[in-house]
Amino acid sequence: MADKAELQEAIKAQGEVVRQLKAEKASSEQIASEVAKLLELKAHLGTDDGKHSFVLKTPKGTRDYNPKQMAIRDKVFNIIIGCFKRHGAETIDTPVFELKETLTGKYGEDSKLIYDLKDQGGELLSLRYDLTVPFARYLAMNKITNIKRYHIAKVYRRDNPAMTRGRYREFYQCDFDIAGQYDPMIPDAECLKIVHEILSDLQIGDFRIKVNDRRILDGMFSICGVPDEKFRTICSTVDKLDKASWEEVKNEMVGEKGLAPEAADKIGEYVSMQGGADLAEKLLKDPILSQNKQAYSGLTDMKELFKYLELFNVTDKVIFDLSLARGLDYYTGVIYEAVLTQNQMEAQPQKQQNDHSTDEPVSVGSVAGGGRYDGLVGMFDPKGRKVPCVGVSIGIERIFSIMEQKAEASEEKIRTTETQVLVASAQKNLLEERLKLISELWAAGIKAEVMYKKNPKLLSQLQHCEETGIQLVAIVGEQELKDGVVKLRNVATRGEENVPRANVVEEIKRALQS
Amino acid sequence: MADKAELQEAIKAQGEVVRQLKAEKASSEQIASEVAKLLELKAHLGTDDGKHSFVLKTPKGTRDYNPKQMAIRDKVFNIIIGCFKRHGAETIDTPVFELKETLTGKYGEDSKLIYDLKDQGGELLSLRYDLTVPFARYLAMNKITNIKRYHIAKVYRRDNPAMTRGRYREFYQCDFDIAGQYDPMIPDAECLKIVHEILSDLQIGDFRIKVNDRRILDGMFSICGVPDEKFRTICSTVDKLDKASWEEVKNEMVGEKGLAPEAADKIGEYVSMQGGADLAEKLLKDPILSQNKQAYSGLTDMKELFKYLELFNVTDKVIFDLSLARGLDYYTGVIYEAVLTQNQMEAQPQKQQNDHSTDEPVSVGSVAGGGRYDGLVGMFDPKGRKVPCVGVSIGIERIFSIMEQKAEASEEKIRTTETQVLVASAQKNLLEERLKLISELWAAGIKAEVMYKKNPKLLSQLQHCEETGIQLVAIVGEQELKDGVVKLRNVATRGEENVPRANVVEEIKRALQS
Repeated sequence: MADKAELQEAIKAQGEVVRQLKAEKASSEQIASEVAKLLELKAHLGTDDGKHSFVLKTPKGTRDYNPKQMAIRDKVFNIIIGCFKRHGAETIDTPVFELKETLTGKYGEDSKLIYDLKDQGGELLSLRYDLTVPFARYLAMNKITNIKRYHIAKVYRRDNPAMTRGRYREFYQCDFDIAGQYDPMIPDAECLKIVHEILSDLQIGDFRIKVNDRRILDGMFSICGVPDEKFRTICSTVDKLDKASWEEVKNEMVGEKGLAPEAADKIGEYVSMQGGADLAEKLLKDPILSQNKQAYSGLTDMKELFKYLELFNVTDKVIFDLSLARGLDYYTGVIYEAVLTQNQMEAQPQKQQNDHSTDEPVSVGSVAGGGRYDGLVGMFDPKGRKVPCVGVSIGIERIFSIMEQKAEASEEKIRTTETQVLVASAQKNLLEERLKLISELWAAGIKAEVMYKKNPKLLSQLQHCEETGIQLVAIVGEQELKDGVVKLRNVATRGEENVPRANVVEEIKRALQS
Repeated sequence: MADKAELQEAIKAQGEVVRQLKAEKASSEQIASEVAKLLELKAHLGTDDGKHSFVLKTPKGTRDYNPKQMAIRDKVFNIIIGCFKRHGAETIDTPVFELKETLTGKYGEDSKLIYDLKDQGGELLSLRYDLTVPFARYLAMNKITNIKRYHIAKVYRRDNPAMTRGRYREFYQCDFDIAGQYDPMIPDAECLKIVHEILSDLQIGDFRIKVNDRRILDGMFSICGVPDEKFRTICSTVDKLDKASWEEVKNEMVGEKGLAPEAADKIGEYVSMQGGADLAEKLLKDPILSQNKQAYSGLTDMKELFKYLELFNVTDKVIFDLSLARGLDYYTGVIYEAVLTQNQMEAQPQKQQNDHSTDEPVSVGSVAGGGRYDGLVGMFDPKGRKVPCVGVSIGIERIFSIMEQKAEASEEKIRTTETQVLVASAQKNLLEERLKLISELWAAGIKAEVMYKKNPKLLSQLQHCEETGIQLVAIVGEQELKDGVVKLRNVATRGEENVPRANVVEEIKRALQS
């Protein structure tokens, strides 16, 4: 094993290089590159000597879905897709990676979280960070000026994962967007209606949908004395108000971002305001704010939005909240974010009726967000032609976590297959009979399994049914063969009946329905 | 354009900051943060001067799916998933990327096609190359010793794309695998049965499934005088026989791989053999080949396999073909590959009956493949514990291409939404009535749309229905409001009837059923 010894020597030497670099506080790029070499050497050792030093894990911030989790995921997707289709949406798909330049300059301070692919010759690529920018690229590329589409796919962010709270580096987004030149606030209202429908249908507890408008924020910043070039960065700071206190947020504005303390205090007054159509009315009467053109348009539209939300019967959950800012750069009008307001373990459907008795629901996390982005498609169009867009993204990892916890807490057993019939044998040497029979069942569209043993015990075949929830067993035995019948056994009732071999398909279909 | 000049100055200054930090070997975090500022400035330049140097495309070898393509894709998936569920499979999902070392040493000569992610600090990652290796990693990681699962997801290969023939760098695989210690050839036969069912159900023309066994190949190589260490590389060369002539293959064996010409000639005799159970019988009587232990086991199992395939009624399409080799390293037993044998444009269902009249169907491409890989899970297990596996992968991009061409050639219009009702207005100022009505329809689970205009013309509303295949229009007008009714219009027949506003949901449900 000279090879192996050599490799181990090389690994030892490389390990020393890495230790040295760390001691010298070398740049982390340099360290990472040497660590990579070390890992590669170790990988060779793993395959060459038949022993394995593999780290058996998924990459940081990612996870597998086991069959039970997939069953829950399917249930959630069906509810969400059902809603999108009820609202007349088509669907599209885009590649998991885009040209790097497609993503550049779209996400502001969050751009550092984008995953880049290694340059292996050819184009520079990055994994998609959301589904909105690929959608805008798709519209510009295909010169589409109006569409209502949904897109459910995974996106990628090199963020600090907090997986127990449903924060991953690879996660699903379920996006619904309406592109086109329409009358104000009608598509915007439908997006909020959709959030309301989906969160209600999922039965994961009470929620609130906060609404604001970038134009109101910009107007507010302007009259509070924020210099124009600081709008976006101050907006990012305001966005932290859902996780940080006003004191912390103010410190960032004044200390890090160099805003005058008086300006910050004025912002502080506004961002504490919450309400509904009434707040829009009140602010329209604010002599300073309403003089600002941007703010005035935003507030007028907000009033209109609430009129439509009233017709859609969703104002019970929607709050006009001046502290809502959203991190991303591309929003130009209405913005919104939905939060669950209950601890998920109390979030049983029957409890919802009592919710209104609690004075102030506690926010436990954002599950949907979106807004209007009228400029994004134009950034891709060679002539800068704009396509106004509004949309919403449902972030379902957190919803999965809640549903998983609910499923674990409940007694109900989740089936991970849909098998209806197990084709079993009562004695030895009946494999051929079983295969012939199951082939007929498959041809008739019946979902059926057979144990992959020549001579399985009847008991172990019956146990498999109990464990996996199979309803019916079709048993062939020596006596049944002689009599030209198949024995059908109902797993739950243990009732048995012999049916003619010739009619077995119809008889099984009948038994499955009863 | 003073602004632009200023920006360019700022970009220059910021560029200098970054250069300086790099020269000083500052921490990469610090550098990244300054680079982010630089990119932000550049992005502003891009948006501020209204000109764009973006290349509007998807990365090489990838494509978007538009709504029509998605409708076809859904149809294909439903057929495939339907079959997998009929056979009792569960499903799992894994991340799109794996630790690089997870993929290392699994794919032989194809490893160069793996996409690596850029080292941005942290783990070294690669995009998955297939679904089989992630499945094996999943089994070892979760200590699962038996499971029947399907997995439908995109995989990534830096190959030379030929997109018109359905060869992409990002493409779907639909995998079905059976893991567990079972009696020989029973799960293997079910995998072939599944390929047969799916290709029949898809109605894309006639097909053949070639079967061979790695043990038969290895035995054959051994008795033909191929040195042990050249088995895998000669196997890769034999695999090219479906695209290259025997002359070319022989040249590669002898010229590139240094095999003795006599050995190559002996191989040439064997790999020209095709048949069924009869060929297995014949080779078992081959005095030299049957003396080889590996070949003997493979041939005995092949005989058994054909017995089961007979019971499954699929021997009409299965050929035991000694030239089938499969490129990947990890196969240890039975291997198979399905090819379509018709030009897809003739592949109409009614033509299939006549297929047997054509003497030799021409292969136009592989659409499924798989085999047994009993050693792969053990490569991940710290103690090398083996979990025998057999599976099949349906490559559906080619199937999509055929289905798309069929759809284009046919008259039938593909609907991309499921909308049942358009809520329309006959006069101006009825938006609120429309929104109130559609909200009721959504609540009743009816799929409905409304035009996002305050005062759309009735004609354009009706046109929208014609274009998108909406069956029913619910019209509110001044007269209808007065009379307390809604007018239901059948788009196809143009028949109209007034129904009471109070019963509109039931009346619409009734009209949709009729």
